[in-house]
Amino acid sequence: MTDRGGTRLRDAYQGSRVMITGGLGFIGSNLALALVDLGAEVLLVDSLIPRYGGNLHNIEPVRDRVRVNIADVRDEYSMNHLVQGQDYLFNLAGQVSHLDSMQDPYTDLDINCRSQLSILEACRKHNPSVKVVYAGTRQQYGKPDYLPVDERHLMHPTDVNGINKMAGEWYHIVYSNVYGVRATSLRLTNTYGPRMRIVDSRQTFLGWWLRLVVDEREIEIYGDGTQLRDFNHVDDVVSALLLAAASDEANGQVYNLGSPEPVSLRQLAEMLVEARGRGSWRLVPWPEERRAIDIGSYYGDYTRAREQLGWQPRVSLADGLRSTIDFYLEHRQHYV
Amino acid sequence: MTDRGGTRLRDAYQGSRVMITGGLGFIGSNLALALVDLGAEVLLVDSLIPRYGGNLHNIEPVRDRVRVNIADVRDEYSMNHLVQGQDYLFNLAGQVSHLDSMQDPYTDLDINCRSQLSILEACRKHNPSVKVVYAGTRQQYGKPDYLPVDERHLMHPTDVNGINKMAGEWYHIVYSNVYGVRATSLRLTNTYGPRMRIVDSRQTFLGWWLRLVVDEREIEIYGDGTQLRDFNHVDDVVSALLLAAASDEANGQVYNLGSPEPVSLRQLAEMLVEARGRGSWRLVPWPEERRAIDIGSYYGDYTRAREQLGWQPRVSLADGLRSTIDFYLEHRQHYV
Repeated sequence: MTDRGGTRLRDAYQGSRVMITGGLGFIGSNLALALVDLGAEVLLVDSLIPRYGGNLHNIEPVRDRVRVNIADVRDEYSMNHLVQGQDYLFNLAGQVSHLDSMQDPYTDLDINCRSQLSILEACRKHNPSVKVVYAGTRQQYGKPDYLPVDERHLMHPTDVNGINKMAGEWYHIVYSNVYGVRATSLRLTNTYGPRMRIVDSRQTFLGWWLRLVVDEREIEIYGDGTQLRDFNHVDDVVSALLLAAASDEANGQVYNLGSPEPVSLRQLAEMLVEARGRGSWRLVPWPEERRAIDIGSYYGDYTRAREQLGWQPRVSLADGLRSTIDFYLEHRQHYV
Repeated sequence: MTDRGGTRLRDAYQGSRVMITGGLGFIGSNLALALVDLGAEVLLVDSLIPRYGGNLHNIEPVRDRVRVNIADVRDEYSMNHLVQGQDYLFNLAGQVSHLDSMQDPYTDLDINCRSQLSILEACRKHNPSVKVVYAGTRQQYGKPDYLPVDERHLMHPTDVNGINKMAGEWYHIVYSNVYGVRATSLRLTNTYGPRMRIVDSRQTFLGWWLRLVVDEREIEIYGDGTQLRDFNHVDDVVSALLLAAASDEANGQVYNLGSPEPVSLRQLAEMLVEARGRGSWRLVPWPEERRAIDIGSYYGDYTRAREQLGWQPRVSLADGLRSTIDFYLEHRQHYV
């Protein structure tokens, strides 16, 4: 956060009160570190559901400088209390596994739809002047009609998670437009970096691949590995979140994130092996339940975020992968 | 159903087993009448929630030729049982009031999202070969970016109901694509005709206007009355539902309905007064809670439905309004 926009961000956040749902998760904890650095008073709300991404080790570097409140976003009364007095709310808690959403659509609905409504109702009733940033996802678009995908692309999600995230995003936009609870949604693509979940491939394949290269095991690529993806280092996502929350122009708006260097999954595997200095990958057939909800190639057009938020990704994929691997080589025991 | 497509429809429905959720409501009951006429075995499922549109009088003409099961679509176990053995499921139950959805978003979520998921889960587990047709709504589009609105138009709903209907539609499409539970969504615009709810303006303004002209009271138009709308007579909507369910090409697809003669609200008021042979209208200021979720002018492009389903509206607005007023002059006591 010391790059361009640093002064603007310091003005926005120094002494401000900031709440992060999913605050012990991958993106939430990285955001917390940045906010502490910017001088904010940070409240992290997380339920630490074992299969999800929350991990107390994530906030080790700032443990004494943030407030942690263990609570589930489905807990309406707690949310009613916690949102009070906050200047910013980064609403990052979510069920993010596509496969889980197909096996248990009701839990996905409760977390990604019902809780979003109750958080927004809490803001409307108890803190209508808060600014909210929601973490949307490229999964809302489904299988792209064209590339790169911009915000004019139709949303036609391929799984229940994508549908519920789409609804969750639009609750934010409607509450912003109708009730003046200012909100912005960022549609995140693949985010990677320190503190991501690497236990298994339920949430992200990249977390699992990182685990495999760290452990010197072979990476398995589904299909022919030619499908393209874009990847953002979490530091870049954190800076997008901070810029979106600080921008009035962004109220009621949605923005894609993205990267200037989309790569194929094969290329990604090679880059991981190279960054690690050893390892291998191979192609394997698609598991049926994954093929059914796969979206083929995707990469996003983030022109709108660049023009309106002044955001662009700064960490190259090669550098980002290398430092992420280094992080897990050092902290592996807290993440497996 | 004696017009073009009549033979095809008779082949599809004669002796078939058909379930309609919201079957005692406005559209469901008109559909039931048509299906009985086509020789189908019809099961009507409805909860008869007092403030909604279900009304036992609606099925008076076919009372002895249909089966009625009172149950709420939120009742998972009942749905699991009822879907079994059905060839077609017209999934019309829904919370349709935009204002209600803003005042009580959770009930709207339960009916329009959670119940849709549980109905689809019931089909997937207990009757995967059923064909489902879902009643979507133009409200999913929100305030149009251009006119007429086709299916390539972005969905950016302006209220919670529009968001939840959008999610409900996409559950159907995803279950069709992923699990092979064949489903089609029709995005209905303003539907009018016999058996619609005319108690108040909570669900539709047109129902209320019909009530006013029938009762020889003055119609109040919000704003300047220049906003355009398209209207479908319920007979035309019924024929679209029947064509969609019978079409394999329609599986996993969404279709706008619409009309070749969009009119302004002023024109509509004049047509109602003319059809009734007496009455008057006047302009009044927008109530704030309605203005906030209003979508301005809307009319839909139904080219896709015409080309792929062979559907087009046949009842002119003037004829439709006249016969609808006649219906309420005769049956008023059952609807107020």
